[in-house]
Amino acid sequence: MDSEDTAVPSDRVRLRRTATRGRYDREAVHAVLDAGLVAHVGVGTPGGPVVLPMAYGRDDETLFLHGASANALLGAGVDAELCATVTLVDGLVLARTPFHNSMNFRCVVVRGRGRRVTEPEEHHEALVRITDHVVPTWDLGRPPSAAELRRTLVLALPLAEASVKIRQGDPVDEPHDLSGPHWAGTVAVGTTFGAPVPAADLAAGIAVPDDVSRSVRARASATARATGP
Amino acid sequence: MDSEDTAVPSDRVRLRRTATRGRYDREAVHAVLDAGLVAHVGVGTPGGPVVLPMAYGRDDETLFLHGASANALLGAGVDAELCATVTLVDGLVLARTPFHNSMNFRCVVVRGRGRRVTEPEEHHEALVRITDHVVPTWDLGRPPSAAELRRTLVLALPLAEASVKIRQGDPVDEPHDLSGPHWAGTVAVGTTFGAPVPAADLAAGIAVPDDVSRSVRARASATARATGP
Repeated sequence: MDSEDTAVPSDRVRLRRTATRGRYDREAVHAVLDAGLVAHVGVGTPGGPVVLPMAYGRDDETLFLHGASANALLGAGVDAELCATVTLVDGLVLARTPFHNSMNFRCVVVRGRGRRVTEPEEHHEALVRITDHVVPTWDLGRPPSAAELRRTLVLALPLAEASVKIRQGDPVDEPHDLSGPHWAGTVAVGTTFGAPVPAADLAAGIAVPDDVSRSVRARASATARATGP
Repeated sequence: MDSEDTAVPSDRVRLRRTATRGRYDREAVHAVLDAGLVAHVGVGTPGGPVVLPMAYGRDDETLFLHGASANALLGAGVDAELCATVTLVDGLVLARTPFHNSMNFRCVVVRGRGRRVTEPEEHHEALVRITDHVVPTWDLGRPPSAAELRRTLVLALPLAEASVKIRQGDPVDEPHDLSGPHWAGTVAVGTTFGAPVPAADLAAGIAVPDDVSRSVRARASATARATGP
């Protein structure tokens, strides 16, 4: 599916550069979000934009962010415009001329207004989604207390305005360079996840649960998952 | 060196959350920037902030960004406030309660005004720095033409206002959870770079130059480099 097949949800997420690499369908948006680990979240402040990395989770068409209730960036995002961008670098693209060097990547850009999640069931579900997105462990540990839940601010960002840009494949060189003497090609970039290492203060006799090992493998597989053509 | 040892360069880059993980010394700023591949650059627009991933390079105390001259985000960053954030995820932190799950990471946040680079020597040097930051290949290919250089907009961002946040090590659980039944530990996250793969349209008889293989190993080593205590 290319960008001809799906409508651009709003003018402000329309891709301007190399627009043929853009996609706006839900499958593409979900696939990149599900593969990523960290969103870079931008908020406007009187002193200019601020961009910070955050864990996130997704429930259907909603992106959830969380932090301490005193988190200034999240607080500034309540009822304000946000941009959450998730990028996976898949490769280095080495052209015959460095002018055409590039990277292969998958990137989703979400714009919208942050909504503070206050309803207890949605707040709880959001935290489950954020935890299990990074590595599915919510059900393996001690459940959060009411006080811990109160100390956690959750923002919801609708995925209604989102765009995906994907670059893959070989360098695109100038025609007159193709017969030249210079090498061109790609270098695959990937993410590895090691074996679980017990904390130094772990009580004796607690082995790594199979569920933790399985969850880490699930995360590794999600990160590596291809996103289609 | 911890945050006590170096002055905070400005109030707006002072770390607010877990400030003991903050560093402001040049060595820390440079180390994280040199290890990263992609900056997430935020620019304010009338419709809210926009965050996009960009390659970058560094020359001493200046960060360089580049794009096509028609690139709307870069254009909006000329003489305007920018935030460039580079994050490396080093691990997943799995606590006894998911409330204390976290990630190990290195992150640098740079705030400042974008300056358009117009002086030819600085423009050229910036492009060398950006190219060779990703993978040192500037000297291996066909040099850019004057027309290609003209089509490339370069922004300079001073590193005067930058902060680094580093989280490493084990989960920090509640004291009353330490004797509980739940596992806790970490999972190392790393980046891999594959062997160079020739482009499908590469002319016959051009082997991968040793310099390319060496450059890719240099990039892999830079990404993995530890940033000190």
